[in-house]
Amino acid sequence: MSTLTPVKTKQPLIVRTISELRSELSIRRQEKPGLETGFVPTMGYLHDGHGSLIQRSAAENGLTVLSIFVNPLQFGPNEDLDRYPRDEERDLKLARQEGADIVFIPSVQEMYPKRALTRVLVSEVTESLCGASRPGHFDGVGTVVSKLFHLVEPTRAYFGLKDAQQVAVVQQMVDDLNFNVQIVPCPTLREADGLALSSRNVYLSPEQRSEALVLYRTLQQAAQWAADSEMTAGGLEAKVREAISRSPLASIDYAELRRYPSLEAVDPQLRLEEALKQSPLLLAFAVRFGGTRLIDNAIFPIKGA
Amino acid sequence: MSTLTPVKTKQPLIVRTISELRSELSIRRQEKPGLETGFVPTMGYLHDGHGSLIQRSAAENGLTVLSIFVNPLQFGPNEDLDRYPRDEERDLKLARQEGADIVFIPSVQEMYPKRALTRVLVSEVTESLCGASRPGHFDGVGTVVSKLFHLVEPTRAYFGLKDAQQVAVVQQMVDDLNFNVQIVPCPTLREADGLALSSRNVYLSPEQRSEALVLYRTLQQAAQWAADSEMTAGGLEAKVREAISRSPLASIDYAELRRYPSLEAVDPQLRLEEALKQSPLLLAFAVRFGGTRLIDNAIFPIKGA
Repeated sequence: MSTLTPVKTKQPLIVRTISELRSELSIRRQEKPGLETGFVPTMGYLHDGHGSLIQRSAAENGLTVLSIFVNPLQFGPNEDLDRYPRDEERDLKLARQEGADIVFIPSVQEMYPKRALTRVLVSEVTESLCGASRPGHFDGVGTVVSKLFHLVEPTRAYFGLKDAQQVAVVQQMVDDLNFNVQIVPCPTLREADGLALSSRNVYLSPEQRSEALVLYRTLQQAAQWAADSEMTAGGLEAKVREAISRSPLASIDYAELRRYPSLEAVDPQLRLEEALKQSPLLLAFAVRFGGTRLIDNAIFPIKGA
Repeated sequence: MSTLTPVKTKQPLIVRTISELRSELSIRRQEKPGLETGFVPTMGYLHDGHGSLIQRSAAENGLTVLSIFVNPLQFGPNEDLDRYPRDEERDLKLARQEGADIVFIPSVQEMYPKRALTRVLVSEVTESLCGASRPGHFDGVGTVVSKLFHLVEPTRAYFGLKDAQQVAVVQQMVDDLNFNVQIVPCPTLREADGLALSSRNVYLSPEQRSEALVLYRTLQQAAQWAADSEMTAGGLEAKVREAISRSPLASIDYAELRRYPSLEAVDPQLRLEEALKQSPLLLAFAVRFGGTRLIDNAIFPIKGA
């Protein structure tokens, strides 16, 4: 990561209201006509995965805007909205280190001042995987990302591929609605032992944390199984489910192979070799360890592996 | 109208593709930093009502973009999509006269190149009046207006108040999704005898055309009835329905009094004087004359009447 851009140590500007944000962006764009804006939307409690997005944005754009907003609209009634982890001070330190210029931290009241009647809904690509297990989740994502795009008016927006379905949904929405922004999908960052970085990792007990390594191990094994020219889509899914199920603390929410980015189902009888001739494939899973739901995925063919 | 701005006679630039439009807008904005863009979205077959929007946009902005697109998404299966009137040559003449700089005329294929999975849905304000009698209509409006706003990125967008509900829906969507655009509602234009200008007037037979004057006459009478301090919301609605029904060719689709712009129902027992203390009121109707459905409305208190 440090090869991309020198670490900036300038304190980013913190703005908490829409009017401040708009006025600040307007001033900077007037000062530098043609200024390109990179945007990293987050829910805060930042880790190095977010850091890599900020750093890439800072390398590719004259101005980088980071948003921190835990969006109630994308949480279900029994999800972790109330206990979602927050640490603004630490977030701002990372934002500064990685080169954010403006950090937008609106309140819920600022983003939803009155009862909002408008939703941006994407069908099909939202109906499987996390969309199936978290009803309404992507309606909230599409709506808030639309709002943030209208507020920031970015040239490029950076999203982590750990949420591969989110990347597909946002790209579909951008294409369908002609948003004037380039979506930049960025690779998942992992701990040294392979656990994908996630703000929700903080919920894990030491035992759960150790068990959760089954996710990465399974992705690695899946890459080997996929290299078998006789392996079918259904065969791979079955092996993956079996591998995860062997962990006594893991409870599978879903573990599926789908076409990417359409997220269409793959005929289970189809050999992977054949399936891959038509589109890349996403192997994605959501697995609970106690009360904590973790997601991870790999896209085949795996690039740069 | 002619007091607003001198008539321009420069031929507007006609663009038919998204890439041409984006590139042209980008060039003009680079040439003139801070250039303000007025936008008039239409379905073509322009009349002087559209002309007044273009003229106002030309007076208030350095650049005026007119779009002409008969959006299939906002027509129901049994509506007049296929026979919606078109006359590009005449439209371009009016566009030039009133001062449009760019006319964007995309094909359906250009606007919907693949199966679009994204919809921008506004609830509540879309559920009565035209939203009730044309299911899905405002879903199509919200979606295409979002697309056009993303393509044109206007400073101001001009909408006629003949479609008062459309103005309310678009304003609600702009507020909820933080679109960076000012919606400018513009007054309904009428023929000398009071018939509201509409592209659909061309469908009317001479007899229907003459009968359709009942709409304007009823609006005028309604203004007098509303001046009666004892008149209730329900009483006004009843008198309006009765007045329209007296025309043998008129078939009422709806004729209702609602709060504006929320379009909430008004307690029929409430005296208008009391109702008006809480919000303006919209008296709106849709009435069929043969196969042609006309709409008209008035907002109380009537401004500048």
